[in-house]
Amino acid sequence: MIIALDAMGGDNAPQATVEGAVLAAKSSNHKILLVGPEKLISGELLKYHKKYDVTSLDIEIINATEVIGMDEHPAKAVRQKKDSSLSVSAKLVADGKADACVSMGNSGAAMAAALFYLKRIDGVLRPAISTGFPTVNGSCIIADMGANADCKAEHLFQFAIMANIFCKKVIGIEKPKIGLVSIGEESTKGNELTLGAFKLMEKGKFNFIGNVEGRDIPKGKADVVICDGFVGNIILKFGEGLAEMMLKLIKKGFKDHPIAWASLPFLWFALSDLRKKVDYSEFGGAPLLGVDGVCLIGHGRSEAKAVKNAVFSAARAAEHDITNEIKEAIAKYGNISG
Amino acid sequence: MIIALDAMGGDNAPQATVEGAVLAAKSSNHKILLVGPEKLISGELLKYHKKYDVTSLDIEIINATEVIGMDEHPAKAVRQKKDSSLSVSAKLVADGKADACVSMGNSGAAMAAALFYLKRIDGVLRPAISTGFPTVNGSCIIADMGANADCKAEHLFQFAIMANIFCKKVIGIEKPKIGLVSIGEESTKGNELTLGAFKLMEKGKFNFIGNVEGRDIPKGKADVVICDGFVGNIILKFGEGLAEMMLKLIKKGFKDHPIAWASLPFLWFALSDLRKKVDYSEFGGAPLLGVDGVCLIGHGRSEAKAVKNAVFSAARAAEHDITNEIKEAIAKYGNISG
Repeated sequence: MIIALDAMGGDNAPQATVEGAVLAAKSSNHKILLVGPEKLISGELLKYHKKYDVTSLDIEIINATEVIGMDEHPAKAVRQKKDSSLSVSAKLVADGKADACVSMGNSGAAMAAALFYLKRIDGVLRPAISTGFPTVNGSCIIADMGANADCKAEHLFQFAIMANIFCKKVIGIEKPKIGLVSIGEESTKGNELTLGAFKLMEKGKFNFIGNVEGRDIPKGKADVVICDGFVGNIILKFGEGLAEMMLKLIKKGFKDHPIAWASLPFLWFALSDLRKKVDYSEFGGAPLLGVDGVCLIGHGRSEAKAVKNAVFSAARAAEHDITNEIKEAIAKYGNISG
Repeated sequence: MIIALDAMGGDNAPQATVEGAVLAAKSSNHKILLVGPEKLISGELLKYHKKYDVTSLDIEIINATEVIGMDEHPAKAVRQKKDSSLSVSAKLVADGKADACVSMGNSGAAMAAALFYLKRIDGVLRPAISTGFPTVNGSCIIADMGANADCKAEHLFQFAIMANIFCKKVIGIEKPKIGLVSIGEESTKGNELTLGAFKLMEKGKFNFIGNVEGRDIPKGKADVVICDGFVGNIILKFGEGLAEMMLKLIKKGFKDHPIAWASLPFLWFALSDLRKKVDYSEFGGAPLLGVDGVCLIGHGRSEAKAVKNAVFSAARAAEHDITNEIKEAIAKYGNISG
């Protein structure tokens, strides 16, 4: 697969993106198009020459002179900066020169660029951003995680169709359990939005397991968790904040009770699973579902390993042709509001 | 203060409620009305006689023959079971025979009983349930935590007025920082509901600090966190589930890495702050804000200590006359939708 990587996206770009590209190219047959200011990127790439023999790797630099910052207004930035690394990455997919694009940058701008260059899939009412979240027994994906603050029932229904396909094809779960985030297990519990979505999802051509409550998400009750982007964004960020709080309090506990210091080296072993679990670099990026081409967003704080995993996710999504799978599914049984 | 305690409410009733009443009466000047089947409760009370000299304590049993279960339909149960421990507790407040009532039972039924016997405060559009949540540097209160799944901007505005008073008077923070749960710090970020609520809250007669994101809640950015009951309920339950998941993974880590066992006794010290922090028994119950009388709901799994703390919270709320404070505030500047 040919993957266009926005070399300038994310807090640690271009170091992390370029190293991530090197790692990805080294351990796969994918060709990586590194998109960004040519001189800057080639200089960065040279740093890894000794260690990885960069010239032997299938990496090509595609020049793009502009950069979209993390705080820029998404739609405006994409409209104005046609030669930004993000826009050029999306264009490469639109022009058939890449099979997928990946960015660790401004996620709103990535969605705007995808909509501008790749367009929406016919019949998709609202594209969604879907992302991985750790659970006791593995992980689940949440859709939408923030692209759509206000949703209607039929939007949630389509999120379920699209995330089901991603989970099946890219994550490899044969019959993903699809849950609807609500405030009670019974079909009669919820708000207007989820009560309406429940009725649609009951009839969906996927494995709908009904409502899932807040506490069911980390328990791993569902493989795919459906909610509007407002709720999804709050769940994700709240989860991050809570995990940080717990680690801070554990640290404070050690500081306040010097007797506990003796346990530190041993504790390291005990916490290894937990650390791995909450490490977002394992999740491999968040796909934009419903745009006509494969586009993945990674965490803004991504280091090289997370970039590599995002490239691999994008390649898997392209290999399994999820764009066409979604097209067919939406055309067949997803177009309910006309 | 005279506090009516629903002796039959909660998973551990009547053991935990009766012992909680004993503990509360022993360490305060409050009179506790233990509401439930007379024989059962007096038998339970006798168990503590040796240890606490129960006859010297200011506890009175008020007979109530029926019990509302945790899974009963709230409004229906309250309508039908007029002699339930919960209904009689609320009636005692309505009749001026108690200053406040407390229940660890079915929270929906507690709200229904409060609305039925105490009524809504004039001008209050929707009463809310407010509850405590741990933060890095203390705790915050969240309103609404589940009473109102669908809200309008003016409901959230009134939640802020009421929770501000509770936080000031009962928790003792002079100028509580009030935050609106949203998906971005800027006033332009959010969904239709929060965009509208932001405009109202900007002009509120309280210390509005603007939007708070999911991760800001455990960071303790706000003392009072305002959201609709759908979002509040998901935050709370998700937080519970996530904390459980993290503890499970730590336990699994110890199981998988026997070398870490050596750290267990020391770890106990280090985790003491964290354990105390996530211990809901410290929070002392969730007030129903906007009903015409003080009514608190405790966690269904409450043990005696949590019951005692809920009784103390209710007494503080009654002492500070928060019902009249809320009445005045709503009449003065809370009645915006007529």
